[in-house]
Amino acid sequence: MRDLEDRIQAIEDRTAIVELTGRYCHMARTGNVEGIVDLFCEDGVMESGDTCEKGHERLLGVYREAFSGLRPLPCVHNHDITLDGDHATGCTSVEIRMVHEGEAITAAGHYDDTFRRVGSDWKFEHRDLTIYHQVPHLKGWA
Amino acid sequence: MRDLEDRIQAIEDRTAIVELTGRYCHMARTGNVEGIVDLFCEDGVMESGDTCEKGHERLLGVYREAFSGLRPLPCVHNHDITLDGDHATGCTSVEIRMVHEGEAITAAGHYDDTFRRVGSDWKFEHRDLTIYHQVPHLKGWA
Amino acid sequence: MRDLEDRIQAIEDRTAIVELTGRYCHMARTGNVEGIVDLFCEDGVMESGDTCEKGHERLLGVYREAFSGLRPLPCVHNHDITLDGDHATGCTSVEIRMVHEGEAITAAGHYDDTFRRVGSDWKFEHRDLTIYHQVPHLKGWA
Repeated sequence: MRDLEDRIQAIEDRTAIVELTGRYCHMARTGNVEGIVDLFCEDGVMESGDTCEKGHERLLGVYREAFSGLRPLPCVHNHDITLDGDHATGCTSVEIRMVHEGEAITAAGHYDDTFRRVGSDWKFEHRDLTIYHQVPHLKGWA
Repeated sequence: MRDLEDRIQAIEDRTAIVELTGRYCHMARTGNVEGIVDLFCEDGVMESGDTCEKGHERLLGVYREAFSGLRPLPCVHNHDITLDGDHATGCTSVEIRMVHEGEAITAAGHYDDTFRRVGSDWKFEHRDLTIYHQVPHLKGWA
Repeated sequence: MRDLEDRIQAIEDRTAIVELTGRYCHMARTGNVEGIVDLFCEDGVMESGDTCEKGHERLLGVYREAFSGLRPLPCVHNHDITLDGDHATGCTSVEIRMVHEGEAITAAGHYDDTFRRVGSDWKFEHRDLTIYHQVPHLKGWA
């Protein structure tokens, strides 16, 4: 019984983590800064290129600025998640459509994430976004 | 035991619903009008912009017309599903490649869905498709 | 109990198969030829257009050549999987960004896969990739 329950818990954990990454995308699309930040642990980190900010207050600033100039439409794919009790790691591809200063932008990259169980929820502990290209759609990524 | 079975059932339900949205895409790609309509409840509704049609007979008309002028290649992402017994709601991003009158078209949007358990299957009760843009690929979405 | 365990096993199998297709994408992205080939059964087959190669040694050649001229960024979607004990079949959409000879390439297609349980892992028994278009991004798919 214990074993079965552990296996069910593992599947629920994995499902919750995949949905967390999807909800993040919907909140990015709607520009829901507070909603996105609440998907992170209190001491959660968002890292991308030269940016690396920790904690809800700093993250609010990161996302307010990120969403002021553009409204991204991210879609996540290729989820590969490894569970370890109340922690987990994951690698997830992302493709993003945006408009920036009147220009259609296309981007591709991946997230290296660590997740932490907080109460009954899973939250982002650390998102590390690697962008391969973020270019005008009409120019392409070559 | 009951509790474990409920949890397994919930995971199976969620999985079936995600696969339902994927099968819809494969049937759109192959132009399988009857197959798509059968993924809806008998009184299922498809809503998009000014279109809102209910029931298999009306839906057959909707999809026959939709697939006559173009063959869409939809891909769904960012599944966020909430179960409620024999009902469920979901939000799913979609990106679509099409050819229309000899022109490559790209589209992005999302589905707000409600699902209903029908026998041992999950079906679409109501699909509400919001399209952000549906534009010539060579023009872009700006 | 047996029934519950079977149901859990089925969910785990399905999850492992979806993740297998995702890991394949990450390994394609990083050009990990040995890693990709190890996702196939010893007698696994990769088929696409006129190419149909069987077994790890031939597959090493296929992927070495495939990744020499381009670095694909595949993303898989619309997973539809049917389990049958230690075998499974699946249909999965794929969209791919590439650079080939200095040109941005976009492709779309789908995989018809068969999977086999090998020990505690699921592996590709046979991948059959149908490409709808693989074209310069700046030209489009019309």
